[in-house]
Amino acid sequence: MRRKLIVVSNRGPVTFSRDGSARRSSGGLATALRSLLQYHDVTWIASASSDGDRERAGVAFDQTTDDGSSYRLHLVEHEERAYDWFYNVVANPMLWFVQHSLWELAYTPKIDSAFHRAWRDGYEVVNASFAAAVVAELEREPEATVFFHDYHLYLAPPIVRRERPDARLMHFVHVPWPQPDYWRVLPPSMRCTIHEGLIANDLIGFHTDRWRSNFIYSARELLGEDVTHKTVTAPISIDPSEFDDLARSEPVLAAERELVARRPEQLVVRVDRTDPSKNIVRGFRAFELYLDAHPEARGRVGMLALLDPSRQDIPEYAEYLGAIEREARRVNDRFQEQGWRPVDLRIADDFPRSIAAYKQFDVLLVNAIFDGMNLVAKEAPVVNTRDGVVVLSENAGAHAELGEWALTVNPFDVEGQAQAIHEALSMDRFERKRRLDAIRRYVREHDVNEWLDIQFAALDRVAATARR
Amino acid sequence: MRRKLIVVSNRGPVTFSRDGSARRSSGGLATALRSLLQYHDVTWIASASSDGDRERAGVAFDQTTDDGSSYRLHLVEHEERAYDWFYNVVANPMLWFVQHSLWELAYTPKIDSAFHRAWRDGYEVVNASFAAAVVAELEREPEATVFFHDYHLYLAPPIVRRERPDARLMHFVHVPWPQPDYWRVLPPSMRCTIHEGLIANDLIGFHTDRWRSNFIYSARELLGEDVTHKTVTAPISIDPSEFDDLARSEPVLAAERELVARRPEQLVVRVDRTDPSKNIVRGFRAFELYLDAHPEARGRVGMLALLDPSRQDIPEYAEYLGAIEREARRVNDRFQEQGWRPVDLRIADDFPRSIAAYKQFDVLLVNAIFDGMNLVAKEAPVVNTRDGVVVLSENAGAHAELGEWALTVNPFDVEGQAQAIHEALSMDRFERKRRLDAIRRYVREHDVNEWLDIQFAALDRVAATARR
Repeated sequence: MRRKLIVVSNRGPVTFSRDGSARRSSGGLATALRSLLQYHDVTWIASASSDGDRERAGVAFDQTTDDGSSYRLHLVEHEERAYDWFYNVVANPMLWFVQHSLWELAYTPKIDSAFHRAWRDGYEVVNASFAAAVVAELEREPEATVFFHDYHLYLAPPIVRRERPDARLMHFVHVPWPQPDYWRVLPPSMRCTIHEGLIANDLIGFHTDRWRSNFIYSARELLGEDVTHKTVTAPISIDPSEFDDLARSEPVLAAERELVARRPEQLVVRVDRTDPSKNIVRGFRAFELYLDAHPEARGRVGMLALLDPSRQDIPEYAEYLGAIEREARRVNDRFQEQGWRPVDLRIADDFPRSIAAYKQFDVLLVNAIFDGMNLVAKEAPVVNTRDGVVVLSENAGAHAELGEWALTVNPFDVEGQAQAIHEALSMDRFERKRRLDAIRRYVREHDVNEWLDIQFAALDRVAATARR
Repeated sequence: MRRKLIVVSNRGPVTFSRDGSARRSSGGLATALRSLLQYHDVTWIASASSDGDRERAGVAFDQTTDDGSSYRLHLVEHEERAYDWFYNVVANPMLWFVQHSLWELAYTPKIDSAFHRAWRDGYEVVNASFAAAVVAELEREPEATVFFHDYHLYLAPPIVRRERPDARLMHFVHVPWPQPDYWRVLPPSMRCTIHEGLIANDLIGFHTDRWRSNFIYSARELLGEDVTHKTVTAPISIDPSEFDDLARSEPVLAAERELVARRPEQLVVRVDRTDPSKNIVRGFRAFELYLDAHPEARGRVGMLALLDPSRQDIPEYAEYLGAIEREARRVNDRFQEQGWRPVDLRIADDFPRSIAAYKQFDVLLVNAIFDGMNLVAKEAPVVNTRDGVVVLSENAGAHAELGEWALTVNPFDVEGQAQAIHEALSMDRFERKRRLDAIRRYVREHDVNEWLDIQFAALDRVAATARR
């Protein structure tokens, strides 16, 4: 069924340069949402993030994707200072750190008047601008369903609801939902406003039952409301055919040739943004413990870490990158010898090389501290050519679906991760293939379209119940 | 009703020196439990912690308190290395930091093989020694109720249960109970063993409904068991008459004279151990923000911080003391002038001076990050002479009882704390007196004996239900 949708996310599907050329946004969210454009009538509302974007901001215009789908794009321009507060103070790091339980509570955060102002004059203001754009689009298309995304937009739904009480609003939370005590890091007014903002929607989606029941629990504790009936579990996924195509593409084949020419006998791969939630430092430490316990692996096994530098405007992220480099250096200084470097660390945004590494891993390490889903755990197995084994954090959303075929690790237990790396590298080929095939089958059967189908079906049920 | 009790806690009521003289232990737990000795037949099992203790370890012997109550004391000697691992690696910081949500999860903890060994050869071993002492005492007095205390002893109850299936076991948890996601900082085997250890008791007590329901929730999530029926909320309290006597004692009067001679016009007091959970650094920052916003307070209002140095063998605690000193220095460098120092920081264990400060505060700041109860919030109002106002963290257990008469603060919101300090200092005398009187009345009506009565009544109910 073709639907009229107003998709609202901070980052849009493309960014424009001054000359009018459009560049596709990377990132799982933009990729997942692009698949909407094929099947539905979409107006997409997003922040203007470049000079080219800003020239086009304020009114919707028609766009066409590479595969010929057309949609309308409505870019919202924000005052620069408001956007900085919204993005670099409130959304990241504050909300991101709360939702991934990353604060060192003995010292951080210190919520001072600067933060209170960033909330009021940044986060609230940007959300109000988004809400105004939504209301304008609903004016044109009152029957459309509004589909909000993620932690940037918690305050927009109730503004839209006030203006358009009958609008159909849904929201998907792409990050973990922490339990209520961790929400208490925020002062009462802020944490309650966030929860009230979300429940102004008709439907709120989460990747896993775990994040969803945490939300139900925190809404009950903080607001005293039972919101079970307006929540849904919908695990995001990928378009496997996109990765099949990528795996055969010339840039990936070139990157793979280079990788094969240099690769050690066995290869442990991780592909991540340099985000503290990704647990990269402990991953290196675990690999060191593995090399400590298994001298026979030295010279034969290597770890390839392909890391996309992330949010370097934010001090916590800049510091984490420093810690990553320091830890890799330390492990390499301890073990490296002629022709073999234990940790091959690449800090760059190089998508073809990532796909090449997906094809070449013997072990894929996903040891995230907390992760809403982690799409790497779904993407890499689909194109892997070596019956590679997935080592997967129990705190990654993907674990709810793929855990039985992965080796489960606790993200804080570096000794357990070292043992899992060993177990994965010494697993017999039959068992490795059995597990990898099962993951692949699962991901192909549960693709990104299913993620959308689940949510729309749930929304229809909620709407039907409301009509009765 | 007089009961036969076997009290089990890591720290005992007294410590012996070589010459046989006994020194009373400080700390809320030892003080609270001492009131048991008056009313019940108690055998107390505790770790030998001095050379004098070790000379007396292994067999129980009779002791008499200052007020003439007699009890038996059974000191347990531990292998030095095992005790070090038990105390300085597992109990503090690991369990303490987990239960107070203090880890910086992006970097700490790293659970390595050293920690796994400290758990196995330290925490498990010391708990087994305690359990063996309990079993020996039950041999002598099979009808006695065993009363375990706190996070040091989570693994002892199931060992006793195996040996004596019919024993009556109760356990009181003096620290906060975090929600299940924070327990996941520990690998599955450890977090499950802790929960299984506690539910081997017939009754488990917590200070507040909040910690108790967190426990019920985490036992359900981690073990799949409903343990509601074996839990009780019993807020620990003080013996008010003890503080009345102290307030009139010569050492306190001397300390008070000294304090009065130096005190500024208005005095903000905090009394704490130098523990990261106490939120001392943010307290100084809040006081700085208050001075920033209220130039008229400079020279007139001072903060007195009486801090007992805590667990300095543990790096996280040593670092926190450094941060405390640095922050006080910074605020003083910014504001101090002839005859007035904004922050008067005293790092010492000086109980009479603490009581003198209790008498003299205009504002008592208790801004703990998380705190099981916080007895300072009960002790200080009882003896205060200035209609002082309590500023109280919403995450301190005491807030559940005293919150309505205190000014509530979020521990992370330094701006909110600065505003609360201002509000407290400018509150009219009538309102201050109304609030303080209410707190005093509450604490006098709900003293430490009530804490015990609630638990014993609940235990009898559980036992009666079990018999049916």
